Amino acid sequence: MLKRLLLTGAAGGLGRAIRPHLARFAETVRVSDIADLGAVAPHEEAVRCDLSDAAAVRDLVAGCDGIVHLGGISVEDKFSKIVGANIVGLYNLYEAARAEGQPRILFASSNHTIGFYRQDEHLDAAAPLRPDGLYGVSKCFGEALARMYFEKFGQETALVRIGSCMEKPTNYRMLSTWMSYEDFLALIGCIFRAPRLGCPVIWGVSDNDTRWWDNSAVSYLGWRPRDNAERFRAELEASLPRPAPDAPMALYQGGQFTQDPIFEEK
Amino acid sequence: MLKRLLLTGAAGGLGRAIRPHLARFAETVRVSDIADLGAVAPHEEAVRCDLSDAAAVRDLVAGCDGIVHLGGISVEDKFSKIVGANIVGLYNLYEAARAEGQPRILFASSNHTIGFYRQDEHLDAAAPLRPDGLYGVSKCFGEALARMYFEKFGQETALVRIGSCMEKPTNYRMLSTWMSYEDFLALIGCIFRAPRLGCPVIWGVSDNDTRWWDNSAVSYLGWRPRDNAERFRAELEASLPRPAPDAPMALYQGGQFTQDPIFEEK
Amino acid sequence: MLKRLLLTGAAGGLGRAIRPHLARFAETVRVSDIADLGAVAPHEEAVRCDLSDAAAVRDLVAGCDGIVHLGGISVEDKFSKIVGANIVGLYNLYEAARAEGQPRILFASSNHTIGFYRQDEHLDAAAPLRPDGLYGVSKCFGEALARMYFEKFGQETALVRIGSCMEKPTNYRMLSTWMSYEDFLALIGCIFRAPRLGCPVIWGVSDNDTRWWDNSAVSYLGWRPRDNAERFRAELEASLPRPAPDAPMALYQGGQFTQDPIFEEK
Amino acid sequence: MLKRLLLTGAAGGLGRAIRPHLARFAETVRVSDIADLGAVAPHEEAVRCDLSDAAAVRDLVAGCDGIVHLGGISVEDKFSKIVGANIVGLYNLYEAARAEGQPRILFASSNHTIGFYRQDEHLDAAAPLRPDGLYGVSKCFGEALARMYFEKFGQETALVRIGSCMEKPTNYRMLSTWMSYEDFLALIGCIFRAPRLGCPVIWGVSDNDTRWWDNSAVSYLGWRPRDNAERFRAELEASLPRPAPDAPMALYQGGQFTQDPIFEEK
Amino acid sequence: MLKRLLLTGAAGGLGRAIRPHLARFAETVRVSDIADLGAVAPHEEAVRCDLSDAAAVRDLVAGCDGIVHLGGISVEDKFSKIVGANIVGLYNLYEAARAEGQPRILFASSNHTIGFYRQDEHLDAAAPLRPDGLYGVSKCFGEALARMYFEKFGQETALVRIGSCMEKPTNYRMLSTWMSYEDFLALIGCIFRAPRLGCPVIWGVSDNDTRWWDNSAVSYLGWRPRDNAERFRAELEASLPRPAPDAPMALYQGGQFTQDPIFEEK
Amino acid sequence: MLKRLLLTGAAGGLGRAIRPHLARFAETVRVSDIADLGAVAPHEEAVRCDLSDAAAVRDLVAGCDGIVHLGGISVEDKFSKIVGANIVGLYNLYEAARAEGQPRILFASSNHTIGFYRQDEHLDAAAPLRPDGLYGVSKCFGEALARMYFEKFGQETALVRIGSCMEKPTNYRMLSTWMSYEDFLALIGCIFRAPRLGCPVIWGVSDNDTRWWDNSAVSYLGWRPRDNAERFRAELEASLPRPAPDAPMALYQGGQFTQDPIFEEK
Repeated sequence: MLKRLLLTGAAGGLGRAIRPHLARFAETVRVSDIADLGAVAPHEEAVRCDLSDAAAVRDLVAGCDGIVHLGGISVEDKFSKIVGANIVGLYNLYEAARAEGQPRILFASSNHTIGFYRQDEHLDAAAPLRPDGLYGVSKCFGEALARMYFEKFGQETALVRIGSCMEKPTNYRMLSTWMSYEDFLALIGCIFRAPRLGCPVIWGVSDNDTRWWDNSAVSYLGWRPRDNAERFRAELEASLPRPAPDAPMALYQGGQFTQDPIFEEK
Repeated sequence: MLKRLLLTGAAGGLGRAIRPHLARFAETVRVSDIADLGAVAPHEEAVRCDLSDAAAVRDLVAGCDGIVHLGGISVEDKFSKIVGANIVGLYNLYEAARAEGQPRILFASSNHTIGFYRQDEHLDAAAPLRPDGLYGVSKCFGEALARMYFEKFGQETALVRIGSCMEKPTNYRMLSTWMSYEDFLALIGCIFRAPRLGCPVIWGVSDNDTRWWDNSAVSYLGWRPRDNAERFRAELEASLPRPAPDAPMALYQGGQFTQDPIFEEK
Repeated sequence: MLKRLLLTGAAGGLGRAIRPHLARFAETVRVSDIADLGAVAPHEEAVRCDLSDAAAVRDLVAGCDGIVHLGGISVEDKFSKIVGANIVGLYNLYEAARAEGQPRILFASSNHTIGFYRQDEHLDAAAPLRPDGLYGVSKCFGEALARMYFEKFGQETALVRIGSCMEKPTNYRMLSTWMSYEDFLALIGCIFRAPRLGCPVIWGVSDNDTRWWDNSAVSYLGWRPRDNAERFRAELEASLPRPAPDAPMALYQGGQFTQDPIFEEK
Repeated sequence: MLKRLLLTGAAGGLGRAIRPHLARFAETVRVSDIADLGAVAPHEEAVRCDLSDAAAVRDLVAGCDGIVHLGGISVEDKFSKIVGANIVGLYNLYEAARAEGQPRILFASSNHTIGFYRQDEHLDAAAPLRPDGLYGVSKCFGEALARMYFEKFGQETALVRIGSCMEKPTNYRMLSTWMSYEDFLALIGCIFRAPRLGCPVIWGVSDNDTRWWDNSAVSYLGWRPRDNAERFRAELEASLPRPAPDAPMALYQGGQFTQDPIFEEK
Repeated sequence: MLKRLLLTGAAGGLGRAIRPHLARFAETVRVSDIADLGAVAPHEEAVRCDLSDAAAVRDLVAGCDGIVHLGGISVEDKFSKIVGANIVGLYNLYEAARAEGQPRILFASSNHTIGFYRQDEHLDAAAPLRPDGLYGVSKCFGEALARMYFEKFGQETALVRIGSCMEKPTNYRMLSTWMSYEDFLALIGCIFRAPRLGCPVIWGVSDNDTRWWDNSAVSYLGWRPRDNAERFRAELEASLPRPAPDAPMALYQGGQFTQDPIFEEK
Repeated sequence: MLKRLLLTGAAGGLGRAIRPHLARFAETVRVSDIADLGAVAPHEEAVRCDLSDAAAVRDLVAGCDGIVHLGGISVEDKFSKIVGANIVGLYNLYEAARAEGQPRILFASSNHTIGFYRQDEHLDAAAPLRPDGLYGVSKCFGEALARMYFEKFGQETALVRIGSCMEKPTNYRMLSTWMSYEDFLALIGCIFRAPRLGCPVIWGVSDNDTRWWDNSAVSYLGWRPRDNAERFRAELEASLPRPAPDAPMALYQGGQFTQDPIFEEK
């Protein structure tokens, strides 16, 4: 479908999980990270790159007609680190894309942009932001930046607010937030296949019984997740005690992140 | 899951139907009614109780960590009877719960809180109340009382607006309002299993083709009803004439209740 | 305009304040209370009446073509007293009205039906109820009862959620909730003058700078309050310390009522 | 179910496709068109009729207890032709129905009433109209006319905004707009079976993965489309190039119609 | 401000009232009607024109840079007359405008597009249409036609839903619907002065105490009506009995129009 | 009212305009900027400070019980400069406030957070963000950061989306966006006077006839702007040509900012 798909953050947990499957979508997959990228498959190109280096990012993006941007910091951290990777790094990526033919971008945003909603609230994409930490705030920045490049230059981006994309749910909250790798891969397919994408917010979550988020505004993309975290419930209940109703894990959509302190700078 | 679940109204129609299945949810089931409770199973405790007797209600609630409250008047009746059972009785129940550790409550509210909406209207939980008789008004009172105990004291309640919970639909309106016993039992499970419940309105209805009510606001509970009244349509059409478009049975969501007179007090 | 206007609760604080002015609206004003009614003006009829006595209420209503219903309990109290005056008493009033030609009713509901909203929230009439005590719950009952009589029998009622109808504001919260007597009298005029009233919720509040409530849904009534609590601010600030941001007085629309205990029955 | 169902536009593409299946719904099917109607089945009556002839239309409608109105112009055309068939013709049909017992009507409206929404927008029935040509404007007229006959005379109509009702999708846009014949027939059944119909807008579209339209407001009709255009995707992708993101076919819900010129009159 | 403003319907009641004041807005005012236009002022050009004559309409529009379109039928009438003047005539006007440089248009739409809403309902511009007769349906057509020319060709139109634009209110309903001539003239000024108009619905009503309609969506036009029908209330009450609550005059926003029959064609 | 109010950006255009008036609100006014602060009044303290210096910002905030934060970059600029002043600088301010007793903050956000809405759109505070440049994106970041500190730590902030706060409007767009100094000062008073502020979005605009923005959600603050840009219209029209309907100045709420390029880094 695509000529060359760029995957950033390819050495991270989620990057490693989806990397082997991206050949479905592109002839060549350019994998990138600041960390070691391991063995390179025949259809792959590996590029070590620090996102805060604007010139390097421009080289990275050149020649690609699609980008899955998982790169940057993906948990709470010191603000200086978040600024470099998620704020300056994202600006570098969009400037590179603007210069290099505006390849369509999947931006890995996060549920931590809205983490302070309670778990008994049902959200659609228009819910005002309520980030739960500096990491979440950096993702709000990213969504705003992408929107500006869309309005001003026509750059299309899918703003995927990823819940918990993992092998399987590992705590009670993830029964609501889990997204299977296979559902995420199907979503990637929908995003790059759509004749017109625009710049929508998409909730990155499987068809879990206890989901909180409503994707009907993006029905035009045709994504119908097939997995359901419910099948892991018995296993989970056998191994973990149920959280108290007022534990952050049970109270807020962002779970434990809402309790993270602001990290000291040094 | 629970230590001791209290079922009020256990001798009523719905109470009798679900009572045998409650052992799924609790080690002990305390069944209660003002009427005779019949034979008592090994996992059950039977307690005769008049809900208008505050002291008796407190004893009834003591030791329970969950309550399914079906007790009280469930059809149109004289106001004096409704006041005793559904207004004073409910106050007694909430006061008892407040004193006895705030067990989670499933309150059997009713579609008759909104019975004057037309059948061609689609409702979610935020639709303003339109009760269709004194019974419906008493359920509006109950929802308001439960909400106040939630806001003021943190008491959690599921406000289940039951449609028609019966063996099967017995008129055309019930093709829309029917809830199977099995779906109701699954809902009970979801309500007591949720780490956090809050005080939501839940439409108590199966996945009927011709349903009117939208439960997406409570997707976090994970209830997915499996039954569908449509499979009884042929049988129903063979035995009953279709109502006229302006018959109350076809016009209002509350059906015939909208036509009930105010009962004389004598 | 009217032949005979019934004022219930005429011996209460608000009743005494507006009573002398009701001759603007009716040839005869029938004043009523359970308490002593004092001197009777030439255009007045005084009737002592206990609202929990159905037969007495029917006599009270007979011959009236308009009712301003301020009667009943207007603060937090024991539930048994609230049931008698605000629940059974209100039912008696509506049954009497149904039998006696359905005079239009102004029902004094209360901001305590929604007292648990925060003071930084802006409400219109469709906001779901959040009563702040048993008194507020009884007013929710009253609104539901009035709505049912409207849907079922066509009885028109204005559901006036009174803020603080007093000579002047006496605490900071009342800078938002105050309604002047003159504005209330103007509202009474609009309600009885309208060719068609229906059964609307109306926020009973002056044009205060710091108001929380939106009456645009009832613009058809033509009520434009003229007073503004702001003119009392300087006086108030000179005499009272500002409440802390998290004091109930500053946090909740219902103010101190949200902190009232449930009154003991004995 | 019905005694006599009138099908107008029976010689058009959609009319020919559904005509053989209408015996499911009625003892007699009266088929009509301005063009030749071909062979007539035993359960059919064939009537040639010009919709702009009021008297002929009245005869056509007489004796029918249901109407599926596909007649008139169904693509962009000269305004004079649209006026005759879709404006005067529709008025004639409603006047005939008013005189002949108000048979329930299915009016074939069109997605071209809202064709200027973008394909990345999700619509429900309350979205303001945005017609994409004179044909679409004539369908807006038809919806308004039907609504007026409903409000004023109680005439019930289903306003079915047909997407693309064809054997199968033949371009990328139809992956979103396609409605299978079988789903349309099921919808016809729901419309004539409902005890009460009212005058709702219904999106005529199958359960396509990439649909844009939300029918939840008409859940009371019980229509659950079973087909999905997605199964034709591979075939389509093999034969047609993907449209550019800013091609009208990819940009607007009305597709190419948004580009049609106004037809010259002579 | 304008070079040449075209006023159609200049011989009608509203046309005659505003005609003398249009010199505020344009150097030349071209007045037109199918009827006699009376004496012509120095700044005026008078053109007799039948709107159903396309060529004549094109000549009429040529050279104008603004149009106030009051022409056509403005009350309930035979459909054939409405089709000629309000449907074909409007199409002719928009085709002429398209050919002649797209002068901005003020289209006199009507409250009869929504006449079946009740008088106790508050409407904004997004309320679905509920026309109250064939006249109202023709105005729905006009709004849809104007919207299509805006979306397709960029033609700007103000869709002014005129209430009752008269010297003064002459019945109780007009206390809500009245628009003074001076307020209408101010609105004309706002419409032609705005740098960008778009194609908005505007409620044509003064700042009446008992108004039903909300213009906040068009605040960008800067129209602040100054008149208020309330000052005529006393005079009206002295001369006319109040309507019954269920009289169409008191029940529906469209008033008596909701009761008009469909006019016979011959 | 306050003991010590900090004004950042005191040497900027807006800072210089309001600085002389801040003595109304506080005993001491601490004025700060990276640039020279000029003469210091008796009630003032002047502190030179670079917002990107965390330690200096902490000292700056210490001892203040209110902050009006106008500091940082206030027009489009190179991203590296925006990051330092508006992103890192803002983080420093909030960290300082968290450490120093959480003084209430007025954050000067901007209409450029939503600059890509059209001028014929009416917005309330819930409208999704549509920033028009890097500057606008940095203000989106600031709103998100403030919201996070509110949810997580209870820090109160007024997010004032300033339109054009100047002596008077200097182009047509400012007839809609202008806020007078006096109205801004009144708003500052409301913000620091409110017993409870929360973290609301406030549109910083006078009561201009042609305003686009709706502040009803913050009616609880009691701000009623008194000025109106309309009084400058004649002067403006005499000196400036009207913009074309599709000029960015007339099309977008953000005006010319929507056309600014991304600034080159070197």
